[in-house]
Amino acid sequence: MVIWITGLPSSGKTTLAQQLVILFEKNRIPCEHIDSDQIRKVFSNTGYSKSARNEHTKMVGYWASRLEHFGVVPIVSLISPYEESRNYARRACSDFFEIHLTTALTVCESRDPKGLYKKARNGEIREFTGISAPYEAPTNAELELDTGTLSICDSTRLIVNHLNTRSGKYLWNSCLK
Amino acid sequence: MVIWITGLPSSGKTTLAQQLVILFEKNRIPCEHIDSDQIRKVFSNTGYSKSARNEHTKMVGYWASRLEHFGVVPIVSLISPYEESRNYARRACSDFFEIHLTTALTVCESRDPKGLYKKARNGEIREFTGISAPYEAPTNAELELDTGTLSICDSTRLIVNHLNTRSGKYLWNSCLK
Repeated sequence: MVIWITGLPSSGKTTLAQQLVILFEKNRIPCEHIDSDQIRKVFSNTGYSKSARNEHTKMVGYWASRLEHFGVVPIVSLISPYEESRNYARRACSDFFEIHLTTALTVCESRDPKGLYKKARNGEIREFTGISAPYEAPTNAELELDTGTLSICDSTRLIVNHLNTRSGKYLWNSCLK
Repeated sequence: MVIWITGLPSSGKTTLAQQLVILFEKNRIPCEHIDSDQIRKVFSNTGYSKSARNEHTKMVGYWASRLEHFGVVPIVSLISPYEESRNYARRACSDFFEIHLTTALTVCESRDPKGLYKKARNGEIREFTGISAPYEAPTNAELELDTGTLSICDSTRLIVNHLNTRSGKYLWNSCLK
């Protein structure tokens, strides 16, 4: 299975992915957290244009599918704003579980832990998703979560419920720290 | 372990990688053949400039290291002409086994199964490694093989001997088809 978390900047993708990683590790299920920030540190020449983002998303989708092939569960936290490359990832993977964080732009912007929205509003950052670049919301996500109203714990529980329903393979520890 | 085969176009990288895949599969060792042609089909927007090739090699090196982390042996057949990005791959991986096919340009060009050298000579293909783009030969490869004088079988045996010496983990079937 590939777990793919998409949403606006500061919608909580990385936080939720980290919760899932803890759960998978507790259950000794091999998983790989593929996080946008970390991947962009490695591929620092990747730009933010539509084509660069599509290539980037495609790259993650392709390699997630290869990890999945060997029984590793990739947990992807990536804005992945374009439908085209998200659909590429869906097609590449065998069991694609897309989680769309539907959290409103105003909520995400009010969090702004890295001050990026502020910079985007000031024009210091260009092509910023939600402000100066589009976010094409998924129409076929397996799960939608509004982290503006749901706590991290509740969001994680909803994901886990879905995973349990999808597959009898997963045993979960319901106790989250 | 990561097996990384580098060399000029038509030096025999893919052929040798395919032999290794057969051997690994016979020995039930999970492996992933990461072949240039196949990867370029997926990432068709990747160009052939120095920076594009470096990014491409780096990408393969990074994801090979992640597969290695989960016990899969990536078998990479990639021209990977630049030292900088080959060294990135070496650093990213835990156990990097670089095989340099030292086969002479004249030999590679005389094979030319896809007619690419001919096109490069005619100027129909630009930035072609060995003709109009450089190949920075490795100075620290674990193994050098001249496929101009060694048969496929002999080359494979030499690789297998090296693998057996490096690691007691591998059991090999010496019978190659």
